[in-house]
Amino acid sequence: MLESGLIAVDWGTTGFRAYRLDADGTVRDRVAARRGILGITAGGHADVLREQIGGWLADAAPAVPPVLLCGMIGSRQGWQEAPYVSCPAGAEDLAAALTPVDIGGGQHAWIVPGLAYHPPDGSPDVIRGEETQILGALELRGADVQQQLFCLPGTHSKWALVADGRILRFATFMSGEVFAALAEHTILGRLMEDGPSDPAAFALGLDRAGARGGILHLAFSVRTEGLFGRIPATGLRSYLSGLVIGEELAGALALFGNDSGQAITVIGAPDLAELYGSALRRRGLRARLLHEDAAAHGCFRLARLRLQLGAGGDP
Amino acid sequence: MLESGLIAVDWGTTGFRAYRLDADGTVRDRVAARRGILGITAGGHADVLREQIGGWLADAAPAVPPVLLCGMIGSRQGWQEAPYVSCPAGAEDLAAALTPVDIGGGQHAWIVPGLAYHPPDGSPDVIRGEETQILGALELRGADVQQQLFCLPGTHSKWALVADGRILRFATFMSGEVFAALAEHTILGRLMEDGPSDPAAFALGLDRAGARGGILHLAFSVRTEGLFGRIPATGLRSYLSGLVIGEELAGALALFGNDSGQAITVIGAPDLAELYGSALRRRGLRARLLHEDAAAHGCFRLARLRLQLGAGGDP
Repeated sequence: MLESGLIAVDWGTTGFRAYRLDADGTVRDRVAARRGILGITAGGHADVLREQIGGWLADAAPAVPPVLLCGMIGSRQGWQEAPYVSCPAGAEDLAAALTPVDIGGGQHAWIVPGLAYHPPDGSPDVIRGEETQILGALELRGADVQQQLFCLPGTHSKWALVADGRILRFATFMSGEVFAALAEHTILGRLMEDGPSDPAAFALGLDRAGARGGILHLAFSVRTEGLFGRIPATGLRSYLSGLVIGEELAGALALFGNDSGQAITVIGAPDLAELYGSALRRRGLRARLLHEDAAAHGCFRLARLRLQLGAGGDP
Repeated sequence: MLESGLIAVDWGTTGFRAYRLDADGTVRDRVAARRGILGITAGGHADVLREQIGGWLADAAPAVPPVLLCGMIGSRQGWQEAPYVSCPAGAEDLAAALTPVDIGGGQHAWIVPGLAYHPPDGSPDVIRGEETQILGALELRGADVQQQLFCLPGTHSKWALVADGRILRFATFMSGEVFAALAEHTILGRLMEDGPSDPAAFALGLDRAGARGGILHLAFSVRTEGLFGRIPATGLRSYLSGLVIGEELAGALALFGNDSGQAITVIGAPDLAELYGSALRRRGLRARLLHEDAAAHGCFRLARLRLQLGAGGDP
């Protein structure tokens, strides 16, 4: 098995997070840096990686722990493109499709591929990194139920439907990025004033989201509620957040339903996961929040599977 | 009546358009300038106005044509706030609520108030300038039908339901501004390349808009359609435009319906009006496009009414 443990890296557009795992899958150490792929030129990835995890590699010598990388690092804009695996897909499919990259010193790291979903009608959808977090969540919490719905909120929120340990389908919602664009690059930001988050305004936005007229109409109410003094200027940001997250929830539930009544697993940073959890509860749904090191555990599972598959190279 | 004719000004956030009308309501002359209220400091409005229409005033002396101003010039960020009139409202209500401003030389101009609509549930909505264009359209085309739906596309599109010459209710859609924010300030712009408008991509976006999942999900397809090479990079802007305008149409028709089967009157610049007209026709609706000087004719009607009302001052 993984006698020398594992180094798992969640390498995204703006951030870099690495985890040092023991042979039993326990996370022993972590590093995080603002070294996302956007700021790295071609050919520079190995240097950044060694700068961040070189100490762990040196400490482990002469034994060499496998290094797995997941996230946007495997995109066309990253280190090397790791072609998408198509849904439905489980851990075995991803483990069989790890893509090696040379990290110097005669060593390789392995990039986890992203997933693509091609719906029978409509556009394809893609995911990179969240598939590994979902696998990690299944590892941590167990795939004990027939069907589970996952929500991974963020700049681009991802919702995924999982059954028997396989990701059946998923959908992207541009909630975080659209929220920022509306707040910073439209008239809606003009009346906003900084302040602590306003739960009442957030809840009002949530409740109104999905109303007739749609978000292009509802968004304008951020302005009018401010103009008429019905929501304080310090609450307008929370109100817009409620509108956008509510729109996401309405869209995701229309796509995935939640007939099973199972709790929806929300994976994310504590504040954001709690915000989505509160939004789901307000709609009468159950949420279980997970902000452990899901990506690290997902990588661990893939590395173990890769060994079992007996594929060439390390792991 | 208006023996010396009229000067009508549509004075918005970014633009200034003035019209010189004859006593019979014919538009004799026009000026347009990038002198919207955003670029004018307090106290500077009279100077800008005289700079643009001073020639017309001098030519008319000693007779003095009334000057009517509509649009954002009457907002809190404009010259002087002209308080909103509440819907339902017709031309008489607006004419009775004109707000005078001193334009120097012992003369006044009159600002047309905006409209507010307070729905029984939900947020208030506001309009400034489009109410005058709608009155102008009714003047030009006649309020010959019991009930009419108007669409005024733009940065903030406005839809309004009119019956018996009165604006019953209306709704704002932030389509133009949201489109620009998405294209310029999110990841969606990255794959876009400039090119002529792409009617097939626009139509695809229109057809997909309103699909399950909502616009936060559908917008991401601008990226994936580009990534997978299904829509050419030069067509992605038209595709996003179709998605956004389609979302607006779906929202507006949900709010206003169109059971009457009457043509929807679209008032706007020729290219934009034609784009919306084609979108409406694609949904099986009839559109009649109006890109004449609607604001000028609306002001003419208000000025005439004001005289008939016998209110003080000129007009």
